[in-house]
Amino acid sequence: MPAKRRVTIALIAQEAGVSVPTVSKVINGRPEVAPDTRQRVERLLHKHGYQRRTAQGEGPVGLLDLVFTEIESPWAMELVRGAEAAAREAGANVVISVLHTHAGPGRDWLERIAARRTDGVIIVGSRLSVRQQGQLTARAIPFVVVDPEGEPAPGVASVGATNWHGGLAATRHLLELGHTRIGVIGGPADMLCSRARIDGYRAALETAGVEPDPELIRFGDFLVNSGRDHGHSLLSLPNPPTAIFAGSDLQAFGVFEAARQRGLRVPDDLSVVGFDDLPLARSAWPPLTTVRQPLQEMAALAARMVLALGRRETLEARRVELATDLIVRESTAPPR
Amino acid sequence: MPAKRRVTIALIAQEAGVSVPTVSKVINGRPEVAPDTRQRVERLLHKHGYQRRTAQGEGPVGLLDLVFTEIESPWAMELVRGAEAAAREAGANVVISVLHTHAGPGRDWLERIAARRTDGVIIVGSRLSVRQQGQLTARAIPFVVVDPEGEPAPGVASVGATNWHGGLAATRHLLELGHTRIGVIGGPADMLCSRARIDGYRAALETAGVEPDPELIRFGDFLVNSGRDHGHSLLSLPNPPTAIFAGSDLQAFGVFEAARQRGLRVPDDLSVVGFDDLPLARSAWPPLTTVRQPLQEMAALAARMVLALGRRETLEARRVELATDLIVRESTAPPR
Repeated sequence: MPAKRRVTIALIAQEAGVSVPTVSKVINGRPEVAPDTRQRVERLLHKHGYQRRTAQGEGPVGLLDLVFTEIESPWAMELVRGAEAAAREAGANVVISVLHTHAGPGRDWLERIAARRTDGVIIVGSRLSVRQQGQLTARAIPFVVVDPEGEPAPGVASVGATNWHGGLAATRHLLELGHTRIGVIGGPADMLCSRARIDGYRAALETAGVEPDPELIRFGDFLVNSGRDHGHSLLSLPNPPTAIFAGSDLQAFGVFEAARQRGLRVPDDLSVVGFDDLPLARSAWPPLTTVRQPLQEMAALAARMVLALGRRETLEARRVELATDLIVRESTAPPR
Repeated sequence: MPAKRRVTIALIAQEAGVSVPTVSKVINGRPEVAPDTRQRVERLLHKHGYQRRTAQGEGPVGLLDLVFTEIESPWAMELVRGAEAAAREAGANVVISVLHTHAGPGRDWLERIAARRTDGVIIVGSRLSVRQQGQLTARAIPFVVVDPEGEPAPGVASVGATNWHGGLAATRHLLELGHTRIGVIGGPADMLCSRARIDGYRAALETAGVEPDPELIRFGDFLVNSGRDHGHSLLSLPNPPTAIFAGSDLQAFGVFEAARQRGLRVPDDLSVVGFDDLPLARSAWPPLTTVRQPLQEMAALAARMVLALGRRETLEARRVELATDLIVRESTAPPR
């Protein structure tokens, strides 16, 4: 939070037009406040960066919450590994929550976390409304967002990878091999990390003088089936691509499957680039050319940031993007 | 614990030849007790199945601890998914600890868990000494072991898969295809689940009248590199196997790599069977024939068992083995 005069409950109460005890009730998560009053107060608490004088209880509790929308992909495991290692260094354990929704944590979840206490929350790939931010802030729970799905609110700490550069590097690699008809499969269209990769793809094409063809640009989720289905759809076009840049390694494995099912060989008949560099990318067949994002490091950094926020330290930067790297293996080759 | 007359601190003190306050100190994890006295008391607490009258605090805390030795494999993710789903149903979250040792949780870890409280502990693939069991019991922390590495102590609740049957089914499948020279790569020799799979392999060979060849039996860890290295070693024998049964899917992917590096095609030149049926087994190339163990269900069951123990319910069975299934895909074929 920017340095400014201490925000008091009295000030919030005045601005919200409610009594001081009402503000206290909201801060303490008590139920007997009308929903719209609660919302108004929470928004103000967040707007003013209110923090309790003594956060929750006394001292750290040794728990760091890692909140996922889904944990189907080995991708999630890499984040768990990174967060766990950083938490362990700080004498803490990682708590996993899976929301099964992209709408961010609900009030029930929040009440439960507040009741048992936490040293901080890392939210992976979820939207976080201003109201949810206010609910966390009001309870003095520090939080950091990893790979935010939408536009993160100003002042929210977040960690990501240089997705745009990754998309650029992957596409340039294919252009340099001689491909010009390049398909791309992204994640959900409303996830920023996914859009950035596709914008990098477009930038690479345009700076190389290749007009992007909207027919070759697809959005799916980041799982194997989405790569297989879009792979089939792209490869059945009258003028199919000679290379596909997939938004995740799992999608790339799905494209491998689609290619095999159509009797195409990778990389002879089709070049494929992934994104993530999961441990399995190198033992895939063929070994997958992919854009490495340092998932473990990203989660470890988020953990250190959230613990620093809990100690009331000022972060050097509220938004950090770690570098991606193109790893060239054997799934890419010049077009026939 | 078996139904019997309530064990009192006085009884433990008498049998250990120490004072009642000394036993209390051990139970409350206070440091000022000589190590050998502490050990003696902990052993007696465990032997008698001592439980505190009020477990730790009042009511569940909404945390279930899942303790791994390592979380490098996507295998671990499947267990997290299962435990998380079962915990969520019960209104709890899963806490991950990674010990980086097979020696089970140390005293520091235990003190930390006891201080912040837990509803129960699921220990994956670790040895748990009688002393460690006593330390958990003394703190009234219920625990369940998944896939115990050594011989679990009598009375310790545990969940596993029918590993012996899995090894039998995998090897029979290869025998039925006409293979007689079949290599096997296990996990660590001292892990029960690994030994059981190899014993199933031996039983299949022997009942088919094939003498097991010690040269074809290898022990590694469950990761990719171990499959690749033992794969190379087996395939460079003067009389190499025509099929390899790997102790995990990751090892099987390593065998794929070794085969490719030697210019051998799977399944034409070498048949390969895995164990686990990770989500990636079906998108491997070729799609992997493997023994499915229901990892998510195993973890979910362990979670429900430990929560039941926390409610002082009697378990229907203290050792449960869930069935394995052979899933035949495209990595196995008759020998040339």
